Amino acid sequence: MVFFAVIGHQAKNDGSFNLNDLPGAGGRMDLLCRCVQASLFLSHGIREDASCILILSGGPGPVKTVRFDGASVRSLSPDERSSASFIKKSLEIPAGNLFREVTPGVLVRKAGLETLLGEHQFGVLDEHGIDIRNASVEELPEGFLLSDHQNFTAEEELLIRELPRYSLGPQVVHADHAIVLLWNEIDRRRSGWN
Amino acid sequence: MVFFAVIGHQAKNDGSFNLNDLPGAGGRMDLLCRCVQASLFLSHGIREDASCILILSGGPGPVKTVRFDGASVRSLSPDERSSASFIKKSLEIPAGNLFREVTPGVLVRKAGLETLLGEHQFGVLDEHGIDIRNASVEELPEGFLLSDHQNFTAEEELLIRELPRYSLGPQVVHADHAIVLLWNEIDRRRSGWN
Repeated sequence: MVFFAVIGHQAKNDGSFNLNDLPGAGGRMDLLCRCVQASLFLSHGIREDASCILILSGGPGPVKTVRFDGASVRSLSPDERSSASFIKKSLEIPAGNLFREVTPGVLVRKAGLETLLGEHQFGVLDEHGIDIRNASVEELPEGFLLSDHQNFTAEEELLIRELPRYSLGPQVVHADHAIVLLWNEIDRRRSGWN
Repeated sequence: MVFFAVIGHQAKNDGSFNLNDLPGAGGRMDLLCRCVQASLFLSHGIREDASCILILSGGPGPVKTVRFDGASVRSLSPDERSSASFIKKSLEIPAGNLFREVTPGVLVRKAGLETLLGEHQFGVLDEHGIDIRNASVEELPEGFLLSDHQNFTAEEELLIRELPRYSLGPQVVHADHAIVLLWNEIDRRRSGWN
């Protein structure tokens, strides 16, 4: 299993956002939707060993987490609006402290980064981290934590200060593009490519 | 300059598609929009040395080409709907055989693959091509030609039969993801990373 977790600092967590305005009303929900797509989609199939975990911190309610599991999700298409409609649906039902399945492969709970960090081993991306191409498959963590268009907050940095840090290249790219690059590294290692 | 050209085999070319249904009514216009985004966007900026060229072949009219130039485009956001609205606008005005600027950095003309191949040197992606990581910066072409969710047609294959072919990894990925991987290769070579 590979986990990609993305913090949406401004992403709305009450389901009231308009599907026609994902960047504005959704709080850059467009970016989170592309992260779902980058985590789960191959050209003609779904990656069944992948989960994409979205931490929606933009209010108005307490932080919620929505998880997409490649193994069981159904009827998800790669366009932003498709993921967004699943997220919206997830946010419209009552959420508790444990994950609740909204529809096959899509789950929601009230919890944020701290809870998640206790459940999986994550690496983070950092332009000053080690070049990911120099890390062996055994050295890679089971998941990667990314931030949306904003940097991690000081509070988040404190929580993740011990995590291994990787760099993907000389340019700082969007979170969804980072996921694409990470998958390529994992795919290459799994298949014995260099 | 780096050129990314994508053939949209079913992509509508008359501007009548609904922005709320890019995959269906647009003929997988969602994928083409993500290709624009992958070609032009860095985390906090636009790649000024990039162009994304969309070949819209899905009718109802003759094939049209829409080009986005990173150096001059304005008010483009990374979400699919933003690129889609520029494409729609481009298709709603009369197009001739030469590129016509619709709005800064967005151009349209009536022409397809054959014309484009006479203008730039392209490489294509092919799972049986050479591993891109083994190509030096001098060996890389000035542009890459990609296909949408469908393979190149027999007619297209005939036109591109002499072009160099590259593989990006063991998995076949979406065209927009391929562009992300190509940019990473180019960025690394330009900056002296391995």
